[in-house]
Amino acid sequence: MTRAELFTQIQHKQSYLCIGLDSDITKIPKHLLEYDDPIFEFNKQIIDATHDLCVAYKPNLAFYEAQGVKGWQSLEKTIHYIPKEHFIIADAKRGDIGNTSTLYAKAFFETLNVDAVTVAPYMGEDSVKPFLNFENKWVILLALTSNVGSNNFQFLLQGNGQPLYEKVMRTAMEWGSAEELMFVIGATHPEKMQEIRAIAPDYFLLVPGIGAQGGELEKISRYGFNDHCGLLVNSSRGIIFAGNDADFAEKAREVALEVQQEMAKLLNEKMKE
Amino acid sequence: MTRAELFTQIQHKQSYLCIGLDSDITKIPKHLLEYDDPIFEFNKQIIDATHDLCVAYKPNLAFYEAQGVKGWQSLEKTIHYIPKEHFIIADAKRGDIGNTSTLYAKAFFETLNVDAVTVAPYMGEDSVKPFLNFENKWVILLALTSNVGSNNFQFLLQGNGQPLYEKVMRTAMEWGSAEELMFVIGATHPEKMQEIRAIAPDYFLLVPGIGAQGGELEKISRYGFNDHCGLLVNSSRGIIFAGNDADFAEKAREVALEVQQEMAKLLNEKMKE
Repeated sequence: MTRAELFTQIQHKQSYLCIGLDSDITKIPKHLLEYDDPIFEFNKQIIDATHDLCVAYKPNLAFYEAQGVKGWQSLEKTIHYIPKEHFIIADAKRGDIGNTSTLYAKAFFETLNVDAVTVAPYMGEDSVKPFLNFENKWVILLALTSNVGSNNFQFLLQGNGQPLYEKVMRTAMEWGSAEELMFVIGATHPEKMQEIRAIAPDYFLLVPGIGAQGGELEKISRYGFNDHCGLLVNSSRGIIFAGNDADFAEKAREVALEVQQEMAKLLNEKMKE
Repeated sequence: MTRAELFTQIQHKQSYLCIGLDSDITKIPKHLLEYDDPIFEFNKQIIDATHDLCVAYKPNLAFYEAQGVKGWQSLEKTIHYIPKEHFIIADAKRGDIGNTSTLYAKAFFETLNVDAVTVAPYMGEDSVKPFLNFENKWVILLALTSNVGSNNFQFLLQGNGQPLYEKVMRTAMEWGSAEELMFVIGATHPEKMQEIRAIAPDYFLLVPGIGAQGGELEKISRYGFNDHCGLLVNSSRGIIFAGNDADFAEKAREVALEVQQEMAKLLNEKMKE
C-alpha cells in the first residue's frame, strides 16, 4: 500500500486506528477453545466486528509463535482473512545481519504478504535496509517505544545532546523515505510528540500504548498530526479483550467505535485549521 | 543447561564451537529437494556429521520462518533431533514489551525447549528480563554485533565516554548473572575482545562471524578466554555450506574438524598458563 492510499483510507473511514491482534490463547473467551483453530476464530470475529472502524491490523507475532506450527497456521489464515483495503503490520521487531534480514523481509513481504514489518534498529544499516527493497512495502522502525524499558537506552544523550532515539530517527531517514519508512513512537511519551514531529515532519508514526498502556489519544493527535494525518494509533488489549463472553466481538466494536469517533472529531478539527 | 555443564562439555570435546544452522533452502544441495522436508534432512546430515566436534547448535530462525508453517515444522524436528548434550541457541533476536517478551520466552523455552535465545537490547529492561525467569535457560544479549551496521549505533559514545555496547553490557549485568546471561560479540571486532573481557570477566560470549564474515579465531580466543573458557564461537555458512554435492556433510565435517583442532590447541595453551 502506498502512503497516498493509506491516507485515502484514513479520510474515507475517518479513522487512523490500528487494532493489534495480540491474540493470546490464554485470554480469549473460553467458548472459542472448542473450535479447531481458536485463535483464528477469535481474530475472524474481531475483524468482522471492527473492519469498518480501523485502517490497519497489527498481529503481534509472539502470540502466534507461542503456539508453534499451529500458531503460524492461525497467522496465515488471519492475514488472508483481513480485507484488502487494510494496512497489515507484522509486529515482529526483527533485525539481523544483512543476509538474514533479507530472508526475514521475504518471509513477511512475499510469503505472508503483509504491508509492513516492525524492525529493531540496534544492528544498524545492513539490518534495516534489506526490508526497504520491496515495492509499496514498509519498515516501521522502533524509535521511542511505549514500555518502561524505553528509559534504559533510548533516552541516553549522545555527543551532540540528542537522545539515542533521535539519532536513530535521523540516521534511518537517510536510508528510507516517508514512502517506505515509519517510526514506532510510544503513546506513553505524549510530551515528546511535538519534538518528534519536528524531527520527521513527513513520516508516518505508529503509536502503540493507548488503552492498556495508558497513552492519551488527544494529546498525541494534536501534536502528532501532519498534513497526511501521519499517525496510526494502535490499541490491542483495550479493544480485543474488552469483553470475554459470547458477546466479546460486540464489546470490541463498542470500544473501537468510541476510539474511531474521537479520531473523527480530532481529524475534523485538524482539517479546519 | 548450567554454566558448569556447558564447561564440562567444552572440556570433554575440546571444543567451543557452535554450528549455526542457517539452513537456507536456496543454498542446500539440490538432491535434498526430493525429500519431504529438505531443510530437516540437511540439518540431520549436518548434525550426524558434526555432533562430536561442537558443543552448541544455533538455528537462525529467519531461515525457518521464511518457509512459513513448513519451516516451523523443520525447526521443531531439528531441535528434537539435536543430541541432549548440546547447548541449543534459538537465534531469534527478539525483544518486545514485557507481556510479549514473556510469551516469546515461553515459546522458546517451553514450546521449543531450547537452552538459549538471542535478544535485542533496544527496548530495555522489561523486554529482556522476562527471558531470565526460566531455570537453566539463557539470554544471549546483542552487545557488539558482527555486521557492518554495528558501526551505526553500537559505537556511539555515551556521556561518560563509554560506547553504547558497553553501556548495554554494564546495564544488563545488573539484570542477569553469568549463570543466565551471555553477550553476542562479533568476531569482526577482535581488537575489542580484551576490553570486553575486562567489562564482563565471568560471562560467556557468543562470537559469530568467523568463516564467511572473516573473523579471526586465534586472536578472539587468546583475548576472550576466561577460566571457564567463556567463549562459544559460531560458524554457520563456512561449515554447513563447505560442500554442495552428495558429500556436503563430509565437507562440513572436514571444516568443523579443522576448527575444533585449532580450538583444542588454543584451549590447551590456555590450560598451561
